[in-house]
Amino acid sequence: MGQFVYFCPNFQPLFNMKRQFIILFALMAMALTTNAQGFFTPTVNSPEIAKDGSVTFKVKAAGADTVRLIIDTRVDTLMKHTGNETWSITLRNLEPDLYMYHYIIDGMKVLDNENANVLRDVKNVMNTFVLDPMGDSPVAVHDVPHGEVRAVWYDSPTLGMKRRMMIYLPPGYEESRQKYPVLYLLHGTGGDETVWLEQGHAAQVFDNLIANGQAEPMIVVMPNGHTDTPAAPGMGSDNNEQPTFAHKQWMEGTFETSFNDIINWVDSHYRTRPVKRYRAIAGLSMGGYHSLYISANQPEDFAYVGLFSAAIGRMDKGKSKIYDDLESKLITQFKQHPRLYWMGIGKDDFLYKDNAEFRQLLDKNRLRYTYHESGAGHEWANWRDYLVIFTQLLFK
Amino acid sequence: MGQFVYFCPNFQPLFNMKRQFIILFALMAMALTTNAQGFFTPTVNSPEIAKDGSVTFKVKAAGADTVRLIIDTRVDTLMKHTGNETWSITLRNLEPDLYMYHYIIDGMKVLDNENANVLRDVKNVMNTFVLDPMGDSPVAVHDVPHGEVRAVWYDSPTLGMKRRMMIYLPPGYEESRQKYPVLYLLHGTGGDETVWLEQGHAAQVFDNLIANGQAEPMIVVMPNGHTDTPAAPGMGSDNNEQPTFAHKQWMEGTFETSFNDIINWVDSHYRTRPVKRYRAIAGLSMGGYHSLYISANQPEDFAYVGLFSAAIGRMDKGKSKIYDDLESKLITQFKQHPRLYWMGIGKDDFLYKDNAEFRQLLDKNRLRYTYHESGAGHEWANWRDYLVIFTQLLFK
Repeated sequence: MGQFVYFCPNFQPLFNMKRQFIILFALMAMALTTNAQGFFTPTVNSPEIAKDGSVTFKVKAAGADTVRLIIDTRVDTLMKHTGNETWSITLRNLEPDLYMYHYIIDGMKVLDNENANVLRDVKNVMNTFVLDPMGDSPVAVHDVPHGEVRAVWYDSPTLGMKRRMMIYLPPGYEESRQKYPVLYLLHGTGGDETVWLEQGHAAQVFDNLIANGQAEPMIVVMPNGHTDTPAAPGMGSDNNEQPTFAHKQWMEGTFETSFNDIINWVDSHYRTRPVKRYRAIAGLSMGGYHSLYISANQPEDFAYVGLFSAAIGRMDKGKSKIYDDLESKLITQFKQHPRLYWMGIGKDDFLYKDNAEFRQLLDKNRLRYTYHESGAGHEWANWRDYLVIFTQLLFK
Repeated sequence: MGQFVYFCPNFQPLFNMKRQFIILFALMAMALTTNAQGFFTPTVNSPEIAKDGSVTFKVKAAGADTVRLIIDTRVDTLMKHTGNETWSITLRNLEPDLYMYHYIIDGMKVLDNENANVLRDVKNVMNTFVLDPMGDSPVAVHDVPHGEVRAVWYDSPTLGMKRRMMIYLPPGYEESRQKYPVLYLLHGTGGDETVWLEQGHAAQVFDNLIANGQAEPMIVVMPNGHTDTPAAPGMGSDNNEQPTFAHKQWMEGTFETSFNDIINWVDSHYRTRPVKRYRAIAGLSMGGYHSLYISANQPEDFAYVGLFSAAIGRMDKGKSKIYDDLESKLITQFKQHPRLYWMGIGKDDFLYKDNAEFRQLLDKNRLRYTYHESGAGHEWANWRDYLVIFTQLLFK
């Protein structure tokens, strides 16, 4: 592979462009480009999404022995050498969704330099694309009214710090005087306050469902569930912090017992309907665990509970009082008639058995819940789906 | 290099962690990790920033012939094979700043998989870190009150579309009833509404300068300067749009002539002081060009103008009336006494000559401006510096 291929901006000459414009473009690009020699090297177009939904990946890799394409947990395949130093593969029958992928070239992880759209999964940075051949995917951006997304710093007196969280306000919020219901949406142990917006495409999901009349306009609050850190990596005062699964504080009760700080801040800063009937809490994995215990300990606060592949386990006893006496707490919670207690999990999820045991506990006590079993495992394809399903059931 | 090395989350076993926690961590990580075989492969720590400000980069690259480290336009150096399949280099005397870097391994661009913090420069995705050995860099996150950042969609009747822009509100905005001055901060041709926050670390700069009393609390408005697109790539309805230098509409007048839509939206949505005395406009490269012409055509609207490496040229005549008669417009503008007309440019900038000619035009007419000449060229290290300098001069 040419040494400089990967530095090239995607230069597409414009028709009717005056010569001096071309020169300016070139100069600016060269000035901004580390290795200007490669500026006019032709590049490949990747990924190329056809109208029928097939996706073609191409990568320049001169002299490589093997080139693999990895997409999430869904695809791991060898690419074919198609000449001109280029390796290629076309995939058909991918479901409409958000995808994350990268290449392995002779054992080395390499990103697709033709695609500047990237996301990270915990510490793994990957390219991303949206596949939406029918133009109706709820995770794609559509030409509908868009809500506002805010990064705010709320005060947590319980934890003694300011903490960052993301807020989604529905389209029209600023122009109306209406009060809105609130969904608290929690992330997993590898995530932070940004991950539902990034990997979850939550703003797109809410924009689309609200525009289609499939969901009520709502405020969505996405806090950071790790109380040992104020914010996502790079946003707190450890400038070069790395994302990690291993936090100093983890499911030991501090997030749950400080949660009222978030509710109070939200109710005092936004036009909410600050009553149980218009308050929902849901989360994935660790966030499902948080949602379970926050709602069980505060039975008068949430009418809607969503457990997405929840990290329900037996490791919690003795760490905090909030984890004690779960069964009797659930009985108390359900006596107050939550309008929805929703569980979603994939057949292959490593937490499937724990969730099944939790369902047995609910069944034994005749506590009514809605159960959604999907394929696949502990992964974002499921969590985006669960969000789309769950959100349509809220506040009706 | 081991095939799976790059999939490993940075697993740091915790003290006093119960066995079941460890198992759960491992299971979750394996479930979320494409190639679980590599989970326990030891990894290197990179970049490692020592207290004296030296930075050590390490990368695993078994069997590689050459490994190069590229940092912005500042460093391009070979790394040394230091055994155990690892290549390494230590750099000293780097200035405190935000850095972007990547590796070239046998001619192939590879990111540092030990560092999940990435940014893109136009289409080039790179790793990033903040170097702040003294703890006083204005571009680093410090433990100071943080402003709020909002992604909003404003209505542009002139362009007939909703468009995305970023808003910085100073700490305390939500709790106060105060009115604030406004800085309109514009990006270059390769940028979008997010780039001042991303590569520019603008929120950090404003947080720090305001906390230190070096800048007035202000609202900062960061619109998208490309009128052929509503938003940054991936945020508009072309879900897989790629960033590019080459836009269909580019310095042809539509951004400047629709700018009042932005001012009107901002003044009607925020507690601004909606008069010239409390309004500033600044931008880099194309954004400097926009700032020049918007302020020259609307001499009653901006008391402060900042041209950062402005793309001042002679290519603009005849494209729009707003580019005609610049000299007489400037004379009119300066008769109304802007409080600050600030220009910054690097000695090596490819636009240096154009800026020098523009200064001659100002000099010839005895129009008073502030001129800041730095080293280096058309690059973010300069633009972050200019922002820090310029911001301290506003609204005093």
